[in-house]
Amino acid sequence: MPVEDTTMLFDRSRKSSGTVVNVNGVEIGGKQLVVMAGPCAVESRDQILETAHAVHRSGARILRGGAYKPRTSPYNFRGLKEEGLQYLAEARDETGLPVVTEIMDARHLDIVCRYADILQVGSRNMQNFTLLEELGRLQIPVLLKRGMSATIEEFLCAAEYILSGGNQEVILCERGIRTYETASRNTLDLNAVPILKRRTHLPVIVDPSHGTGYSWMVPHLARAAVAVGADGLIVEVHRAPNEALSDATQSLSPDEFDEMMKTLGPIAEAVGREIDHLEPAI
Amino acid sequence: MPVEDTTMLFDRSRKSSGTVVNVNGVEIGGKQLVVMAGPCAVESRDQILETAHAVHRSGARILRGGAYKPRTSPYNFRGLKEEGLQYLAEARDETGLPVVTEIMDARHLDIVCRYADILQVGSRNMQNFTLLEELGRLQIPVLLKRGMSATIEEFLCAAEYILSGGNQEVILCERGIRTYETASRNTLDLNAVPILKRRTHLPVIVDPSHGTGYSWMVPHLARAAVAVGADGLIVEVHRAPNEALSDATQSLSPDEFDEMMKTLGPIAEAVGREIDHLEPAI
Amino acid sequence: MPVEDTTMLFDRSRKSSGTVVNVNGVEIGGKQLVVMAGPCAVESRDQILETAHAVHRSGARILRGGAYKPRTSPYNFRGLKEEGLQYLAEARDETGLPVVTEIMDARHLDIVCRYADILQVGSRNMQNFTLLEELGRLQIPVLLKRGMSATIEEFLCAAEYILSGGNQEVILCERGIRTYETASRNTLDLNAVPILKRRTHLPVIVDPSHGTGYSWMVPHLARAAVAVGADGLIVEVHRAPNEALSDATQSLSPDEFDEMMKTLGPIAEAVGREIDHLEPAI
Amino acid sequence: MPVEDTTMLFDRSRKSSGTVVNVNGVEIGGKQLVVMAGPCAVESRDQILETAHAVHRSGARILRGGAYKPRTSPYNFRGLKEEGLQYLAEARDETGLPVVTEIMDARHLDIVCRYADILQVGSRNMQNFTLLEELGRLQIPVLLKRGMSATIEEFLCAAEYILSGGNQEVILCERGIRTYETASRNTLDLNAVPILKRRTHLPVIVDPSHGTGYSWMVPHLARAAVAVGADGLIVEVHRAPNEALSDATQSLSPDEFDEMMKTLGPIAEAVGREIDHLEPAI
Repeated sequence: MPVEDTTMLFDRSRKSSGTVVNVNGVEIGGKQLVVMAGPCAVESRDQILETAHAVHRSGARILRGGAYKPRTSPYNFRGLKEEGLQYLAEARDETGLPVVTEIMDARHLDIVCRYADILQVGSRNMQNFTLLEELGRLQIPVLLKRGMSATIEEFLCAAEYILSGGNQEVILCERGIRTYETASRNTLDLNAVPILKRRTHLPVIVDPSHGTGYSWMVPHLARAAVAVGADGLIVEVHRAPNEALSDATQSLSPDEFDEMMKTLGPIAEAVGREIDHLEPAI
Repeated sequence: MPVEDTTMLFDRSRKSSGTVVNVNGVEIGGKQLVVMAGPCAVESRDQILETAHAVHRSGARILRGGAYKPRTSPYNFRGLKEEGLQYLAEARDETGLPVVTEIMDARHLDIVCRYADILQVGSRNMQNFTLLEELGRLQIPVLLKRGMSATIEEFLCAAEYILSGGNQEVILCERGIRTYETASRNTLDLNAVPILKRRTHLPVIVDPSHGTGYSWMVPHLARAAVAVGADGLIVEVHRAPNEALSDATQSLSPDEFDEMMKTLGPIAEAVGREIDHLEPAI
Repeated sequence: MPVEDTTMLFDRSRKSSGTVVNVNGVEIGGKQLVVMAGPCAVESRDQILETAHAVHRSGARILRGGAYKPRTSPYNFRGLKEEGLQYLAEARDETGLPVVTEIMDARHLDIVCRYADILQVGSRNMQNFTLLEELGRLQIPVLLKRGMSATIEEFLCAAEYILSGGNQEVILCERGIRTYETASRNTLDLNAVPILKRRTHLPVIVDPSHGTGYSWMVPHLARAAVAVGADGLIVEVHRAPNEALSDATQSLSPDEFDEMMKTLGPIAEAVGREIDHLEPAI
Repeated sequence: MPVEDTTMLFDRSRKSSGTVVNVNGVEIGGKQLVVMAGPCAVESRDQILETAHAVHRSGARILRGGAYKPRTSPYNFRGLKEEGLQYLAEARDETGLPVVTEIMDARHLDIVCRYADILQVGSRNMQNFTLLEELGRLQIPVLLKRGMSATIEEFLCAAEYILSGGNQEVILCERGIRTYETASRNTLDLNAVPILKRRTHLPVIVDPSHGTGYSWMVPHLARAAVAVGADGLIVEVHRAPNEALSDATQSLSPDEFDEMMKTLGPIAEAVGREIDHLEPAI
């Protein structure tokens, strides 16, 4: 695959102004940076509602939360499934935040689409080609996470599966790659951001939570992601990280998230972008 | 995950004699090494029949061939689908060789199970957990390939998804991992074979075709795989490698395969195993 | 090695305020960010003088340039050696910029110390332990680059070799690690910056030139490095990148460097740091 | 660097019959496989003499042992230095086994050459180019170990540094590369063996001790290395592995080594090679 490949639908030359994905009025890929935040997994009605309000107050524009959870071991907590989706929808109703949640299986599409505003394809499914094809047939925004050891070319080709089906609403997400280094959970590949922005017209966001694995590192890499030119962030926030059923070490508390958000504005400005700090909805 | 984890169904201590998977009389995991061979993809009736007879004559015990092909780009050849499965079944009828073929999507299970004797889960789907769960509910042998950057622990946990569903017929396959080295397509990790044999009671086979990416290397690594203690091999053979629609550089011609097979016997013997050279069936 | 290891001289707890390395009045590790810039290799008197003046005008505080060059192939240009050092010294005299240059061999120490203000240990020599020991016996600042596949623990232990000899003037440099990704020359590991800052009291700078391999990417990652908390940058600048005898693709032109420098100030400020834009010296 | 590069001295086409390095009558690169064995580090006179006799009895043809030890931390045992070399020479005198030992620094050449028959360049020094140049000027066999994350091209170019100086006695050693996998210390890259044998006329040996990190794995990978076409092995053997000052987990006891050696003959034969089992010298 050459550096410029005009036969590919993702190619920058196809849409030099860049794709802006509009989710219920929230524009991803525009001047305004978009922060998606929320817990790794929806664990209870209370947990997601409380977290949704908190991240909303701090400036998040999209609520994240997993209802179907891919887990390395079959014996780990794997999500509340439809019950979790219902709580997410309730949180959206209360806060106005659109919801992004993971789709693990094409057979769940009917039910997940009933509740979600953006469908997330996780790293382990980046090359689940039949799932990508199904998503290509829908008209719903897709957040495609880079596979754990996917090259940028493979990542772009995975996006092409969706685009070639007719769905143009694809958001790319760099979330760290697997390397020999064990001091962090993954190695966040910020090189990927300018490369993706140059190769493609699609919005590119960064996940500093999975990209580092440790909550104290998240604000540092979130700032770097904004500085490098990302169109947004997706960040794990839990009302009580120590009690989280998954990703406890990498989840920010609402206070930590709030503090981080305050630091992003000046950096966004320095690279010609903005971050809107919403007023509390209630 | 500790080195010995007796709570896991894959743990060696659960079945110290080792699991032997019986596929229409072909035993995988026994004293006899089992070689699976055939083209990357079924391309035509002629192609698969001719190749099946050839590999059978050279001692292969299982026929491989893809009907549903996961491909990096959506614009590549993606298999003949059911037509390909029919040709595979015809080749089995003519040669007596059981058939292994890839399952990419749980929704294809009905149709693929109608024709296949072993279901292969490809590297990209090693952590397609809902697919693994479905396979756990069946009573059909599963060939589980290691993910491109899966740790051995993740690989074993993926097998656990199948085992914990009730299906004990799991065959593990080392097929090379992704590293910085570009002189070969992947880095075949033969360290994984003794580790897997020590940690688990499941049979372990090796794929030197994907593990190297070049046909001239395959016989060398096939011999190494036998020497290191693998229970079998899976090898790509095409009647005319230069014309193959996928994996052309790594496919052996029938003659090259035959020559390779002749060299495996003495090595198998040296490590206390056997390879049966079948007489031509016709 | 535990996360905090007070037996190690590099440990943060030993010097909670952080080490500031003073090089002829330029402080590395203080509030002010320090940018080191210059060509990969000194190629001629004209080239280094012209480049030195240019980077000085744009705000660089240290001049870089290689006189002894480690090259993958023995048949590549390997530096002007002492002649190159003399030109560097001349450039320092003209601009006032202290000089950092690579030391490849302990036997060159006498001569290199005659001209250099900071000795750089390249990635390939990060674990050249006898060289590190010699540097530990001197009182000259050492810029220690992370090895191509060094873990953070190995990197810190390499610094410990120098510190334990008595030389406390060590500057750490993240310059990208080797991964499977080929779209950039290395994968710049910005996770390493906050980890190193937390684990150690030593200054940490970033090399976005080697960390990316492409000049167009350098400004993006330079901004990210400032945002993530680095104490400085080291950047390759060549008066005519297309004609460079080494690292042509990753060298900035003086104009590109100048443009990049102008963008760093606001980001530095956003993270509580400063970058001084010097007035032209002449 | 193209697949065939006749401008390089290492290129296969330069010497199609292959280089045979003769060390006091032991031929490396000939039909006979050569096993080098001994402790990671020389720890005492007794230890090295006892081990030397043991490995000699089991068929080793070269004695290995480190006198100058590169260690990640400066506070670890770093070898007996000249005293260690003297013990090695004594062991050679008693057993007749030529000695291979590591050279860490060009300034040690005089003293190390006084005792050693083969100079080993360790992984960390594979790109210590000034050391390689010095070795190129000598007429003594050099065992060049692959760097921890060296590509095969970089490995060959490092050999070229020695060859281009005039020293043709270079032995290449694959010893495992650094990957994301942590179940073994390194990932032994046996793909490298046939690639190196095809690209170059130099002998290629394998180090299954560093390539695995665990003594129980060593015999398995030693057998694989013979099957894949290596010209020899280098194996760590300690009279009491649990008491070893370095590499304890990967050292074989003399009994384990003996048992392993007995299994290599039939595999060597299967690939057209031989392993000579020497009679005890005393």
